Amino acid sequence: MQQELSEFHSIFTGTKKDIESFMEMLDPVIHNASDDHERLYYHHIYEEEEQRLARLAELIPLIETFQAGKGGDFSPSNNTFNRLLQELNLEKFGLHNFVEHLDLALFQFKDAERQAKLSEMRGANHTSYQFVKEKLADINERFDTGYTDPHAHHDEHGDHLAEHSHAAPAAKAVIQKPKRSFTVGSLISK
Amino acid sequence: MQQELSEFHSIFTGTKKDIESFMEMLDPVIHNASDDHERLYYHHIYEEEEQRLARLAELIPLIETFQAGKGGDFSPSNNTFNRLLQELNLEKFGLHNFVEHLDLALFQFKDAERQAKLSEMRGANHTSYQFVKEKLADINERFDTGYTDPHAHHDEHGDHLAEHSHAAPAAKAVIQKPKRSFTVGSLISK
Repeated sequence: MQQELSEFHSIFTGTKKDIESFMEMLDPVIHNASDDHERLYYHHIYEEEEQRLARLAELIPLIETFQAGKGGDFSPSNNTFNRLLQELNLEKFGLHNFVEHLDLALFQFKDAERQAKLSEMRGANHTSYQFVKEKLADINERFDTGYTDPHAHHDEHGDHLAEHSHAAPAAKAVIQKPKRSFTVGSLISK
Repeated sequence: MQQELSEFHSIFTGTKKDIESFMEMLDPVIHNASDDHERLYYHHIYEEEEQRLARLAELIPLIETFQAGKGGDFSPSNNTFNRLLQELNLEKFGLHNFVEHLDLALFQFKDAERQAKLSEMRGANHTSYQFVKEKLADINERFDTGYTDPHAHHDEHGDHLAEHSHAAPAAKAVIQKPKRSFTVGSLISK
């Protein structure tokens, strides 16, 4: 587990920095929002990432506790270890949702500077998500925690994030013209 | 705690039904999406609620375990009780985020049928969020868990959801004309 702990530690300290960069990017967009819908949309994403930041502020020290050998046994009979696994399983979804927040932003922030920053974070966090997903599947099996991934069916046909990803990579997003613009009320007839 | 447990139980079984109704409402919208951005947007919200549904499928039986007196003491020295508090604190945010998902949907699904259903769910879940927030503040204080709400500052000037809420009630949403439509790429200059 020590090897995995050190990998998890670098992944979650890395994504923590990326959340902070993303929140900084959203802040002026929220303040300059042109209407209540736009403001709510970005404020909502901002808050979800802020909630994740608060959870990581507890998970990272917990990983460090185990790295220092002070977390107890790597065993389901150890409640602190169970808490670690629970939080890691939760933050796997946190990474997944963050990648989708970045994909949504890639559709909307089309300037070269933000496209480059978003694409860089998107790539790194998608790799982190894949890594955490695979390691946790392995760990949950190894410790027979009985954990089943409620999300797995979305990946039945491979990584659905990878499917989304080619919808909004930096290069394509710039030239991409959606069939129809996505406007407030454009779904009235749906 | 028994009184609060029964209130939490009815709140989380109620919101579970509402998630299922909301996911049913999103399903055809995802399938009829007119472009990748629109599809990703609704699929993303669908997945976040699906993740919450999976967490509630664990939380509700845990509440029932305590209702049956099989969860152990209501004490921070009881790890099962700590897990209950952790999950309740997490699902307080789940309720908060759900209310915002419903507000976003109220901006977009303008037909009377969906406006009525969304407004009904919005009202019920906003009340549930307020209740859970207040009860947990009280419980965390009573058991001196040292828990601090990373979200509280959003409520400094009162309930910011209430602020959002008058942006999209069923009645107003129908006649509401946003200053500017919220389109893909409308933020290029931001």
